[in-house]
Amino acid sequence: MSFDVAALRRQFPILGRPVNGNALHYLDNGASAQTPDAVLDAVRLYETTARANVLRGVHALAEAATEAYEGARADVARFLGGVPAEEVIFTGGCTAAINLVAQSYGSLLKPGDEIVLSVLEHHSNIVPWYQLAQRIGVKLRPLPVTDEGRIDVAALPQVVNARTRLISVAHVSNVTGAVVDVAAVVAAARGVGAKVMLDGAQRAPHGPVDLPALGVDFYVFAGHKAYGPNGIGVLWARRELLEAMPPFMGGGSMIGSVTFEAITWAPPPRRFEAGTPPIGPAVGLGAACRWMMGLDWTAIGSHEMGLTQRLMDGLAAVRSAWLIGPPGLQGRLPVVSFVLDDVHPHDVAQILDSFGVAVRAGHHCAQPLMERFDIAGTTRVCIAPYNDIGDIDALLAGVDEAVRRFA
Amino acid sequence: MSFDVAALRRQFPILGRPVNGNALHYLDNGASAQTPDAVLDAVRLYETTARANVLRGVHALAEAATEAYEGARADVARFLGGVPAEEVIFTGGCTAAINLVAQSYGSLLKPGDEIVLSVLEHHSNIVPWYQLAQRIGVKLRPLPVTDEGRIDVAALPQVVNARTRLISVAHVSNVTGAVVDVAAVVAAARGVGAKVMLDGAQRAPHGPVDLPALGVDFYVFAGHKAYGPNGIGVLWARRELLEAMPPFMGGGSMIGSVTFEAITWAPPPRRFEAGTPPIGPAVGLGAACRWMMGLDWTAIGSHEMGLTQRLMDGLAAVRSAWLIGPPGLQGRLPVVSFVLDDVHPHDVAQILDSFGVAVRAGHHCAQPLMERFDIAGTTRVCIAPYNDIGDIDALLAGVDEAVRRFA
Repeated sequence: MSFDVAALRRQFPILGRPVNGNALHYLDNGASAQTPDAVLDAVRLYETTARANVLRGVHALAEAATEAYEGARADVARFLGGVPAEEVIFTGGCTAAINLVAQSYGSLLKPGDEIVLSVLEHHSNIVPWYQLAQRIGVKLRPLPVTDEGRIDVAALPQVVNARTRLISVAHVSNVTGAVVDVAAVVAAARGVGAKVMLDGAQRAPHGPVDLPALGVDFYVFAGHKAYGPNGIGVLWARRELLEAMPPFMGGGSMIGSVTFEAITWAPPPRRFEAGTPPIGPAVGLGAACRWMMGLDWTAIGSHEMGLTQRLMDGLAAVRSAWLIGPPGLQGRLPVVSFVLDDVHPHDVAQILDSFGVAVRAGHHCAQPLMERFDIAGTTRVCIAPYNDIGDIDALLAGVDEAVRRFA
Repeated sequence: MSFDVAALRRQFPILGRPVNGNALHYLDNGASAQTPDAVLDAVRLYETTARANVLRGVHALAEAATEAYEGARADVARFLGGVPAEEVIFTGGCTAAINLVAQSYGSLLKPGDEIVLSVLEHHSNIVPWYQLAQRIGVKLRPLPVTDEGRIDVAALPQVVNARTRLISVAHVSNVTGAVVDVAAVVAAARGVGAKVMLDGAQRAPHGPVDLPALGVDFYVFAGHKAYGPNGIGVLWARRELLEAMPPFMGGGSMIGSVTFEAITWAPPPRRFEAGTPPIGPAVGLGAACRWMMGLDWTAIGSHEMGLTQRLMDGLAAVRSAWLIGPPGLQGRLPVVSFVLDDVHPHDVAQILDSFGVAVRAGHHCAQPLMERFDIAGTTRVCIAPYNDIGDIDALLAGVDEAVRRFA
């Protein structure tokens, strides 16, 4: 393996700190990744040399702050395959980005229009559409999930029709790790003139995203899952869509002019960034994107998939363990969910915690998917570039202990 | 003056850094305050020892993150006069907090219901209500402003009536520095059964807020104006209001259960915190609140008002200068707007910038107030505890230069 994971790990001091007396084996990256020194240093540099409000200032610090903020937008645009920077909207998070689309693009929809969501979506890609359905009478059409935990693109013809306006699905499932067949989704949408949104929350942490090649209309992801700060997310959308969309939140910087009788809107991206934006968090996310663009993702992909194989081999040797998700490495990212017969996922996670292994247990904000598999929850392992064999082996040792203790 | 401003300044390294070869005189605190080392250190400590997602985790870091996040909520609750922590909602900013109220509380209103806003409101306290008015037909009633730049509470009887549901006004004007007569507003509202919201963006940076004494129903403020990070704001509201309000944004952590047919909501504060919250920024704001609670605000108030007097005396000696706002120190905070005859505020600010003096120039996101005074904008000086006589004198020297050059 040419990839030097030890060198990478040194960029994340938290990975070297004991937790409750154990070495930390952090495998809860799907909930929140850790953040490298490069990001923390970039934010601190901003806060101590350029902190001010953006756009409206005519002094040196305000100009420096604006440059830092717009520089971060340009970094994100490069990370997303070189899209125009003015198509990148900073939001408070990935959830806020989806809510922006649901409320703003959603307000252009009519009763009877249909939105297709898959059964494996995170609640953040269900609830805002449910709220829209309650408000204006659009209809939500669930796209089924296969036994392998994939969005069933073969079912698209039964679900997509002339009333479909949008297909919004996870680029990568936060539970099963399955990567959606984007081309199939885009083809189905184009056939009926619908738009496509991808929730990239679990995809962005695994390297730059080539949006022009994907051919979708909306893309969202979260800063904190992609090695950046909390409190920042991204919406990318095609310019013509953004221009047609009314604002979501109202406030300073997103207006043309304001009287009590009439208000006009600024053009995108300003129209969608009401009030003081999350400048420091955006600067951190820009640094995270630059940091990710500086890595060798071919080598990291091999590394991550090697660990995933080791994990799946180890779980295959546990008689009472079964996977929720694809059985192999094809068409997936290193997110692995499993269930142990007769052991509650929370108990598994608690035993793992006693070994210093951090994983998530529960429904993973994907209750419809849990219902699809008739389970209460799973134990989920999300591998990041900085994870190593020691992390996987500690996890497997913990699973053995859970089986011994409960089964 | 017993207050040691030099010691305080050392907590803000940016104040000691030259900007374009000048000593920095940062007087744009109303747009964004600077942040002390205590806040930056608290965030870094969180990011390097406790970073994880909150609430849903069963491992040591997730517990530490949850403790840090909920600890920050408790710090904010103490800063707000000891309100119950579960009445404190973290949002992406002050603007997001007002939008939350406008969309959520606003959805309970009916066509013909009236909302009273003053003419001096920041756009963030106008635009969300305008959007609500467009959406559901509530009526906005402007409350006039006096020649001194104060909300005219004497006009309340003409504007407030049985259809009034909410009076939403700035606790302190971001242009004139005037402090609103809260008791008069609350009395007017109570007389007709209306609620009161205060926009505390410009008040919170000047010390703890005694919400129980104010007797209002909603309060909002911004992290970055109160020495905290960007990307974090606070909504406080009475529990019974929060319990009656539907969610604003949808996503993870704010639900009871999710199916494609029916979704139930979590109780407050969760209901209003969809998705991963801005954990790091909240931790920073908690540290900022603790930092503010550790200061002697009586001494700081004297210090700030001494500087304000010096500034006003200096401007009074400039023949072409006039103030937009109260002429004295009564009922105000250290926010001072002025206009120079025949000199555009942007030109004033640019000359000040060449002296290292950072101020804001323009309409300050308060266009209706500019219209009220028939001006295009003002030059605004916002004094923080760390400002000193040198800052004021540098500003006055710059104003003299502007007058010499243009008048």
